[in-house]
Amino acid sequence: MSKIIMNHGAGGEIMQEFLSKHIVSHFPKAAADIPLEAMDDSAVIDDIVFTIDGHTVNPLIFPGGDIGRISVSGTVNDISVMGATPIALACSVIMEEGLEIKIVDQIMESMGRTSRECGVPIVTGDTKVMEAGALDKMVITTSAVGRRSGLLDHNLKIASEYRDVKHRWCTDSNLAPGDVIIASGTLGDHGVAILSFREGYGFESEVQSDVAPLNKMIAEGLRAGGIVSMKDPTRGGLANTLNEWCSKSHVEIEIEQSFIPLREGVVNACDLLGIDPLSIGNEGKAIIGCVPSMANAVLKAIKSTPEGRDAAIIGTVKEGKERVILRTEVGGRRILEPPSGDPVPRIC
Amino acid sequence: MSKIIMNHGAGGEIMQEFLSKHIVSHFPKAAADIPLEAMDDSAVIDDIVFTIDGHTVNPLIFPGGDIGRISVSGTVNDISVMGATPIALACSVIMEEGLEIKIVDQIMESMGRTSRECGVPIVTGDTKVMEAGALDKMVITTSAVGRRSGLLDHNLKIASEYRDVKHRWCTDSNLAPGDVIIASGTLGDHGVAILSFREGYGFESEVQSDVAPLNKMIAEGLRAGGIVSMKDPTRGGLANTLNEWCSKSHVEIEIEQSFIPLREGVVNACDLLGIDPLSIGNEGKAIIGCVPSMANAVLKAIKSTPEGRDAAIIGTVKEGKERVILRTEVGGRRILEPPSGDPVPRIC
Repeated sequence: MSKIIMNHGAGGEIMQEFLSKHIVSHFPKAAADIPLEAMDDSAVIDDIVFTIDGHTVNPLIFPGGDIGRISVSGTVNDISVMGATPIALACSVIMEEGLEIKIVDQIMESMGRTSRECGVPIVTGDTKVMEAGALDKMVITTSAVGRRSGLLDHNLKIASEYRDVKHRWCTDSNLAPGDVIIASGTLGDHGVAILSFREGYGFESEVQSDVAPLNKMIAEGLRAGGIVSMKDPTRGGLANTLNEWCSKSHVEIEIEQSFIPLREGVVNACDLLGIDPLSIGNEGKAIIGCVPSMANAVLKAIKSTPEGRDAAIIGTVKEGKERVILRTEVGGRRILEPPSGDPVPRIC
Repeated sequence: MSKIIMNHGAGGEIMQEFLSKHIVSHFPKAAADIPLEAMDDSAVIDDIVFTIDGHTVNPLIFPGGDIGRISVSGTVNDISVMGATPIALACSVIMEEGLEIKIVDQIMESMGRTSRECGVPIVTGDTKVMEAGALDKMVITTSAVGRRSGLLDHNLKIASEYRDVKHRWCTDSNLAPGDVIIASGTLGDHGVAILSFREGYGFESEVQSDVAPLNKMIAEGLRAGGIVSMKDPTRGGLANTLNEWCSKSHVEIEIEQSFIPLREGVVNACDLLGIDPLSIGNEGKAIIGCVPSMANAVLKAIKSTPEGRDAAIIGTVKEGKERVILRTEVGGRRILEPPSGDPVPRIC
């Protein structure tokens, strides 16, 4: 393959391989607590938690959100799932010449509102314009920095009472057999909302994007204590998240299919379109791994927040091969493969 | 005006007004040491120095550099001109479907090489792909974090022996009458190299881009001591930098035109094309303000580095109106107006 294809940015196995071979391999290694090659949700260096995300979602404004809300939420969530406290955002906007300024105002107002909602200020930025035809309207890249908080120490101390915890942040490599997996709410909403709205399938009355900042919900989970790892299942959805966990924590994960929270509209849309809701990206959900004795307390804490009201325990971590097993309602078992890429392009 | 125009991203007065009205106004204010509304090269919050820059340079590879080298250098320089020490970079790459992977490799290799050169590792990243026709090849957004160092304290302590220094970072508001202005080298090289190469004017044999990370050069200046403010004259060039300084520090700046280091090729190209070399962007230069008693020591320190070998004292800070006076060789004086925008589009 000599040219870039859509799947090089679609969050699945093809992207992982591309990144390893053509991006990360060219960069010098750093003495970081969580370095680039860990490919975790954020890096940690000199006790600063640091992340960046480019946003190319199409359309810019969609049922339940817009590129501004995604830009703030996605980056805040990448910091939060490390167990860290996000403290500031940076925002780079690139616009196409000829874009309506009222659209810019609407999106920036949404960024500001989401920033207020999560309490993380935008402290620095940059703006560029490309000539008409050189860019499809607008892309926004956000970066965020976060800090370690007493809440994370408190949370890990509780986990440590149950078993040894390898890493002092909630990294992808931190799961161990026995841990319980919680989904913070219904899955697939964002990807289906975008696809349906863009293609005119008409499901958007039932399914809206879930895009939301999760730092407050996650703080409640940490307050309960016992969380060892978290991920936000964006591109490639739950299937990608769970498979990444398996390979980085060297465990098997067993999921009860009937426990996975799914909206009826999402199930219907996916049936009709022949796509798997477990491989579709989310923008307001976290998948949480915690020690078993604390699972119900963490679940209760997550469910007490507006973002986590539909949270559910969906499975457990086992010793075994690095793979995800899906137990079906009729007692069957199948392997949930890592997706080659998210089935919906440009969802974030 | 209801639509985005190229000058909204061209670094001059039109951009400043657009940012104030349509971007910054929508965002909540932060309790930051250097907040967004300061519009400085970087923000400072919780003693973390933080910056972001989107890069849309066209073409991707040009005489003297490429988008990868600009992406690392520009962001490292924005941290460095605050007097801070850059410690890590984040990199978001957005590519067009169909882009040759060998071009991606070449640019990522250049990013890696520049990262090694300046000693600032890339610790986190993100990759997206837009469909063919939705993006002109590639944009890269980089963010960086930096820390306060003993070198900055040492430098400001020396400045404080001469006069009161308002701010504990090298902010735009930190100049005072009497200060001396130093340019770290020849101006206009980058913009002219890009324009000439892109348009086929043929000056590229004489003029190459100056794109380079300046953290090591700046560290030498700080070691000499007495620097109070620094800026990198990117979009809008020296004219924009000096005018921003005047309005933020409430001073007049007087520049000796004949002292400004300019390559003959740049002067010739600008004469021919009818553009002002003082309004053209640079990617490997710093403009430095320091207390007068230390000016020669700072100049000597800057000149001792490869990036600063052509450095020169170009003017002084006065009490007066918030404006830049250019003293011409024949004894005339004219006002150097802030440019409405950089005359060369998509230079960075």
